Amino acid sequence: MIILAPISSVCALAFAAYLAMKVMKLEEGTAEMSKISLAVRMGSDAYLKRQYLSVGIFFCVMFVVLLVLAWLGFITIFVPFAFVTGGFFSGLSGYIGMKVATHANVRTTNACITSLNSGLRVAFNSGTVIGLVVVSLGLLDVSFWYYLLNWYYTSVQPAASDALRIQSITSAMLTFGMGASTMALFARVGGGIFTKAADVGADLVGKIEAGIPEDDPRNPAVIADNVGDNVGDIAGMGSDLYESYVGSIIASAALATAAGLGESGVALPIAIASVGVLASMFGTFLVRTGENADQSKLLSALRSGVYSSSLIIAVASYFLIRATLGAGSLGVYFSVLIGLVAGNFIGFATEYFTSDAYNPVRELAQTSTTGAATVIIGGLSLGMLSTAMPVIIVAIVVISSFLLSGGANNYSLGLYGVAISAVGMLSTLGITLATDAYGPIADNAGGIAEMADLPDEVREKTDALDALGNTTAATGKGFAIGSAALTALALIAAYKEEIELIALRKNIDFNFDLSILNPPVLIGMFVGGMLPFVFSSMTMKAVGRTAQSIVVEVRRQFNEIKGLMEGTAEPDYKRCVDICTQNAQKEIVLPAVIAIASPIIVGLLLGVNAVAGMLCGATVSGFMMAEMMSNAGGAWDNAKKHIEAGKGNLGGKGSDNHKAAVVGDTVGDPFKDTSGPSIDILIKLLSMVSIVFASLTLQLALMK
Amino acid sequence: MIILAPISSVCALAFAAYLAMKVMKLEEGTAEMSKISLAVRMGSDAYLKRQYLSVGIFFCVMFVVLLVLAWLGFITIFVPFAFVTGGFFSGLSGYIGMKVATHANVRTTNACITSLNSGLRVAFNSGTVIGLVVVSLGLLDVSFWYYLLNWYYTSVQPAASDALRIQSITSAMLTFGMGASTMALFARVGGGIFTKAADVGADLVGKIEAGIPEDDPRNPAVIADNVGDNVGDIAGMGSDLYESYVGSIIASAALATAAGLGESGVALPIAIASVGVLASMFGTFLVRTGENADQSKLLSALRSGVYSSSLIIAVASYFLIRATLGAGSLGVYFSVLIGLVAGNFIGFATEYFTSDAYNPVRELAQTSTTGAATVIIGGLSLGMLSTAMPVIIVAIVVISSFLLSGGANNYSLGLYGVAISAVGMLSTLGITLATDAYGPIADNAGGIAEMADLPDEVREKTDALDALGNTTAATGKGFAIGSAALTALALIAAYKEEIELIALRKNIDFNFDLSILNPPVLIGMFVGGMLPFVFSSMTMKAVGRTAQSIVVEVRRQFNEIKGLMEGTAEPDYKRCVDICTQNAQKEIVLPAVIAIASPIIVGLLLGVNAVAGMLCGATVSGFMMAEMMSNAGGAWDNAKKHIEAGKGNLGGKGSDNHKAAVVGDTVGDPFKDTSGPSIDILIKLLSMVSIVFASLTLQLALMK
Repeated sequence: MIILAPISSVCALAFAAYLAMKVMKLEEGTAEMSKISLAVRMGSDAYLKRQYLSVGIFFCVMFVVLLVLAWLGFITIFVPFAFVTGGFFSGLSGYIGMKVATHANVRTTNACITSLNSGLRVAFNSGTVIGLVVVSLGLLDVSFWYYLLNWYYTSVQPAASDALRIQSITSAMLTFGMGASTMALFARVGGGIFTKAADVGADLVGKIEAGIPEDDPRNPAVIADNVGDNVGDIAGMGSDLYESYVGSIIASAALATAAGLGESGVALPIAIASVGVLASMFGTFLVRTGENADQSKLLSALRSGVYSSSLIIAVASYFLIRATLGAGSLGVYFSVLIGLVAGNFIGFATEYFTSDAYNPVRELAQTSTTGAATVIIGGLSLGMLSTAMPVIIVAIVVISSFLLSGGANNYSLGLYGVAISAVGMLSTLGITLATDAYGPIADNAGGIAEMADLPDEVREKTDALDALGNTTAATGKGFAIGSAALTALALIAAYKEEIELIALRKNIDFNFDLSILNPPVLIGMFVGGMLPFVFSSMTMKAVGRTAQSIVVEVRRQFNEIKGLMEGTAEPDYKRCVDICTQNAQKEIVLPAVIAIASPIIVGLLLGVNAVAGMLCGATVSGFMMAEMMSNAGGAWDNAKKHIEAGKGNLGGKGSDNHKAAVVGDTVGDPFKDTSGPSIDILIKLLSMVSIVFASLTLQLALMK
Repeated sequence: MIILAPISSVCALAFAAYLAMKVMKLEEGTAEMSKISLAVRMGSDAYLKRQYLSVGIFFCVMFVVLLVLAWLGFITIFVPFAFVTGGFFSGLSGYIGMKVATHANVRTTNACITSLNSGLRVAFNSGTVIGLVVVSLGLLDVSFWYYLLNWYYTSVQPAASDALRIQSITSAMLTFGMGASTMALFARVGGGIFTKAADVGADLVGKIEAGIPEDDPRNPAVIADNVGDNVGDIAGMGSDLYESYVGSIIASAALATAAGLGESGVALPIAIASVGVLASMFGTFLVRTGENADQSKLLSALRSGVYSSSLIIAVASYFLIRATLGAGSLGVYFSVLIGLVAGNFIGFATEYFTSDAYNPVRELAQTSTTGAATVIIGGLSLGMLSTAMPVIIVAIVVISSFLLSGGANNYSLGLYGVAISAVGMLSTLGITLATDAYGPIADNAGGIAEMADLPDEVREKTDALDALGNTTAATGKGFAIGSAALTALALIAAYKEEIELIALRKNIDFNFDLSILNPPVLIGMFVGGMLPFVFSSMTMKAVGRTAQSIVVEVRRQFNEIKGLMEGTAEPDYKRCVDICTQNAQKEIVLPAVIAIASPIIVGLLLGVNAVAGMLCGATVSGFMMAEMMSNAGGAWDNAKKHIEAGKGNLGGKGSDNHKAAVVGDTVGDPFKDTSGPSIDILIKLLSMVSIVFASLTLQLALMK
């Protein structure tokens, strides 16, 4: 069954390569456009190279630490290598995404000169390349390690029992999850700091102080802003979703043995994901419209692709589950279905709170009439309120997938059901990511149109594409955060399994007391609950600090470069890119260290019960914070756009109301694109680190 | 031992009455001053009457519901009455506080004409009256119910065993805790909405749009703003701290039986609190300085009062614990000490993040140079970071008081130790509240000076008093939030005890599974974690909405009342007071209903394990949110004051930087004075409701 994984990955990669070539064959447009695109591409390249260098150093250090631990017998020898491959593939996903996007942006602009629809085709095809690459690489990585470990524990050093073999395989596989999460955290946080600092910095001086429009070529931070879209929203998101995808699969696999499912339990999530890749590919074929289709038709074409893919997966999973687990385990099938549906529901809830088609954002726009302060109060309170629906949806998913898959009689099987619902939720990632990734490409295309001084109607078309992207992005965020919560819960269960396995193996007399009234668990929950707050504080402050450096630099260039405002002299774009790059690299280190060190420190000081409590506290408070920040940010953005829209609402562009709304949007930038999405990764990374270092903390804690 | 309670209460009340009369004998000043003071007093009176009316209706409904439940046998007949008395005394504390404050404000202004020091004496004496009244009423209520219930379960309907008698007493006592919390929630939220809506509304139009100074008599919302200080910061705080005080005592008492301490375990927290009242009274005598003392001397005089009280309590508790629990239980003594010290540490941490004497606020003020958006980002990230120290302190308190009082061998005794540390933390409330309550009195005094057009140096003196109050208020907030977390944890343990007792009594076969991996517990944690977010969203939105009504009204008056800006016509102050009153009453209902209904709904849908999970989730996320919001709000306030201070920093008053800082301050208002402090109450109210309705939910849930 697992053989499906490499087969479907290779198919998808081939298709992605074909699409990529198709996009590359298109014209770049005028020389000016090529020049701008090249500047963006070079900036992005430079940033990612620099980032991968720092991350590389970090990975080398971790690799050596893990080697030493393996040598000391705390972990198997596979762990260091799995860690590195996880990081490598996650980084590769981001890199390929960035490459595709930086070639696609200018071609999208050029296609928009012809028509809206051809612009959408270019952007969506490029998005599809990114989506398929991410899921294929994930599946390849998972299946490669499965085969390798299986071969090792069968032929080289046969495990004492089948159960022990499976458990050894899955616990080693969790390590590349940790590698992927670490890379994703760096990419999301680093890219997020870069993109938002550039964006905020460019807006603060450009739009607010100098009064020049967005993406105006006279703004020295404008290239950095466009580079940011590629390294944050594309490369960061690619690594991030690679991590989510792989994480959900291996979290389910890790619970298979305890659930009494054996090898079939490991095969199932991989098989569902493989079918998901093929279904996504098939779904993209359905995204076809006539040359004159309008936006709503395009959106429904997009949706029909996603829904058909979901349907295929829903049908195929039934047979997959019958074949792997037998007709008796059909309850697990409902978990997959619940996951598939719930992701969409969270997406709808997100859309309701962040789209100006509904009341919340319209009311938020209304608060701008009494100034910036009420816009901020309104947006924060909207974000806080928006946590309610997703919590209820996740609660329903957890309890129903637990009970339907048989949790009442077999506790571990119930938890496996919860984990598999996350796999179901992410199974359409190939196509949902495609609809997600084209947004930033369209955004960039707009920037190029503006900078190359193309006619206004081109910019209008790219703006329309961008707006369409915002709607689909809301759904995408729903999937990301919903699956993060479910995967994190599954990983907490996996942590417990892992500790018990180690205790069994090493003959340690150990019993969990995970009661919420056990003081270490309680304290762990408090510490865990605090982590997303401290983490967000750091990432937000990093954006603020970097943005301030950009502001200072842009002001300096405005003052010192003569003829800049008149358009006779060129700004020094590169300097802004450099500032963002350097700062982002500096600022990612501490948050990453905290994420990795916390589980180890808590484990050594307070024991493994406290670690479990910490994971739980971090998941709960992290889920709320991620929802609050993402939705408040999205709502501010769209409240501002609502004011700008058409002929202008509530005074339109340039009015005091608009200025107040821009303050909200600026605060929302780090909320929704740096801190919020990073928390999703944080909560999973904490769990994976806990699991990988479980043996170490358990034994050191007992030595005391 | 419990007899100490009525004795010390009566002493303290007598002393408070003496001080109150002393204050009342002072002159009110000019006719203009009297007139303004009267307007503020009448507005406050009108608001509180209206509030008590709505709350009265709510209490009547609850009373009938509880009577029916008692008649059905789910609860004892004492519950409805205890609920009402708890609410009554909490409300009375707030009412007396308001009465004292509204007479003290104008006398403080008048005294400031003479000297700073005499102004401080008037304000501090009035604060002392409020502090002593709150703690005395609390102790009276506790001891009254103890005697009544003890008499009933000894003489009228003797309990089967001593343990059962104590348990019956303490579980009935928890009901008046619920009454007190309900009242406190109404007072804090209602008063908080009133005060901040008036404040924000007055600032938005007055300071920002019309460019007139704070407390300018031409501003129609200025009386409402001053009324707000009395009904929110004084009456709301009085009810709030009454609830904290009583809550910590009865939470410890409720754990006494399970800890195997019997009656002495109930007597101990009451005795410690009684000694605390006397020590606080004694401490206020020490707050004496020469007529020419400067601010830092005054602050150290204030502190020496607080520290002497603490010392007395530290010494006396030793003997109290020897006498009640015996020399073997001296571990519990360390819990008291830890609590006493920890409250101060959380206070220091709060001060560090909210005072402009330290870096965080100075850096926050610096962010104003790049505009309002960076001020908001900076303040939010400061607030998020400020959660770290309090979490670590609470973690240390929990683990050390648990272990020191013997939790390793007797689990319940350890939890009792945690509860008693909250009693230790609040034992100096009599005097800390005195230092806390005089801040708003000074604030009001300043408003009167401004409106009565007194010389600038009077306003400078009241501003100095206000600034001193800000420092002491920070410490006060530390005590409130630290004790809230500890009390809430103790109440979760009490909830478990209560359920087990009911199960035993009613022969229900029931076992807790409070493991964090038990799905109902997990889901409960998610739902609980969400509640503070939704609750804060509602309270903030309520402030925003009410402030917008005020803005519209003030703008209307500026436009329609001719000669208003020239000072020849008077604004219609009463209309603004009415708008605040009506809106606040309307807006408190839904949050209160959610707080009371959530535990019952979760209990019925998901069972008692889920309720315990919910309480835990709410405590963890509520603690973070309360810390974040209070500290961010305080920091914004002081960053603005830092810019205004002296000859002005970073451009001073009226500069663009100042305007950006005012946006932060305006957002911070509902953060620190409405939503933040309400969460402290919310997390305890949730627990108490859970306990009172435990029997109902357990039996109904089992019926399904």
